[in-house]
Amino acid sequence: MFNYQIIIEYEGTKFIGWQKQKNGSSVQQTIEKNLTKILKETVLLYGSGRTDSGVHAIAQSAHFNLRHKIDNEFFFLNSANFFLNKKKISILKINKRKKNFHARYSAKKRKYVYMIINRKAPLSLESNRAWHIKSSLNLQLMKKATNLLKGKKDFSTFRSSSCNASSPIKTLEEVRLISSGDKITIAFKSKSFLQQQVRSMMGCLKYVGEGKWSLKKFENIIKSRKRINCAPPAPAHGLYLFKVSY
Amino acid sequence: MFNYQIIIEYEGTKFIGWQKQKNGSSVQQTIEKNLTKILKETVLLYGSGRTDSGVHAIAQSAHFNLRHKIDNEFFFLNSANFFLNKKKISILKINKRKKNFHARYSAKKRKYVYMIINRKAPLSLESNRAWHIKSSLNLQLMKKATNLLKGKKDFSTFRSSSCNASSPIKTLEEVRLISSGDKITIAFKSKSFLQQQVRSMMGCLKYVGEGKWSLKKFENIIKSRKRINCAPPAPAHGLYLFKVSY
Repeated sequence: MFNYQIIIEYEGTKFIGWQKQKNGSSVQQTIEKNLTKILKETVLLYGSGRTDSGVHAIAQSAHFNLRHKIDNEFFFLNSANFFLNKKKISILKINKRKKNFHARYSAKKRKYVYMIINRKAPLSLESNRAWHIKSSLNLQLMKKATNLLKGKKDFSTFRSSSCNASSPIKTLEEVRLISSGDKITIAFKSKSFLQQQVRSMMGCLKYVGEGKWSLKKFENIIKSRKRINCAPPAPAHGLYLFKVSY
Repeated sequence: MFNYQIIIEYEGTKFIGWQKQKNGSSVQQTIEKNLTKILKETVLLYGSGRTDSGVHAIAQSAHFNLRHKIDNEFFFLNSANFFLNKKKISILKINKRKKNFHARYSAKKRKYVYMIINRKAPLSLESNRAWHIKSSLNLQLMKKATNLLKGKKDFSTFRSSSCNASSPIKTLEEVRLISSGDKITIAFKSKSFLQQQVRSMMGCLKYVGEGKWSLKKFENIIKSRKRINCAPPAPAHGLYLFKVSY
């Protein structure tokens, strides 16, 4: 058996998400179907993690096992992308990996980036690519709030009720807010994330930025470890899976 | 008469360009129609300049005269954007201007940005938003080539045959290449540009980056002032009208 990793970019708008589901077109299934056709062997694709419907990927990582070796990787990428590009999926790279490499379980770090456009006018160039927030945001307060999220803690407040992680304790190694003009990007780095964790944290950061919550209140809400205290999660279309490191 | 300036963002993909034409939907006409409806007065819109079909704008500038004053600018923007946003046009701002303000003739500086994605895999997130170049590019050489374009000179080499500017002599004040990962952006600043000047210069810069032309050859081609020596112009969809200053 051969084990291959692929790095994938996609525009999440028209997909029901990464994960195969009965009711619509998923990124995983779209790629599996195409690779099965091209490689003439059933391909089962294991992603580094799920992304929700509408979430984009700059570099999702996935692996698959194959009985036959891929002789010409250049030809493989060209053939795969010829089909997939129409669906707004691009395979950026293919890497031969050791037998025990697993896109999900071998991952050491995951990085997500969330994009906000903060202005009155609706979005044209960035529609479906960023969260459009009209109310004015206090960036200094938001930066301070990101610091409260850093480190090892119980993130139950930011955990979707359907999350099946064994523990709500995670270590958020990096949260970095950068703004330029009306564009605000916040990068999150951790070994792994709970379901909807980034979108939930973003929803709360917006409340702080709008002045709805004080920093003290936000701190208490983190500590409460109660989902019910969380702000409404930010929309999926502002979220990008940026990188998975091994 | 009242004179209003508007600042406009648009996704150029589905338009035949800024300028009204018989055979398709232009940005200018789409906005004129909507404003005429909303303001209940015939609106004629004068842009800072044309953009070709497929070219995007981060901040196009235009003006129009009106017999009646716009009492509620907030309400005006909301109404206009409600219609225009479906067409991927956003009016970012409206400014009341002096009677003699002209979006085209009063402009002091124009800034364009051109975006390249330099990689093998086709584009999904940036399809129709950047020039996809697969061949490897020598950025150091390209940077040196941008320096040859700076300053006051005869830009006839980079002038479309249908350009009706009175003189081919322009002063290119700034050409700045920045790269980050596989993304290369080149910013151009000048009081005004010849028709297809940026795309023509970009086509030549690509030839230099690919090693098809030496810097010496590029220098000679600039000096030749002959359109026939120009490389094929870069595609429209990598070009953004970034800012117009007055």
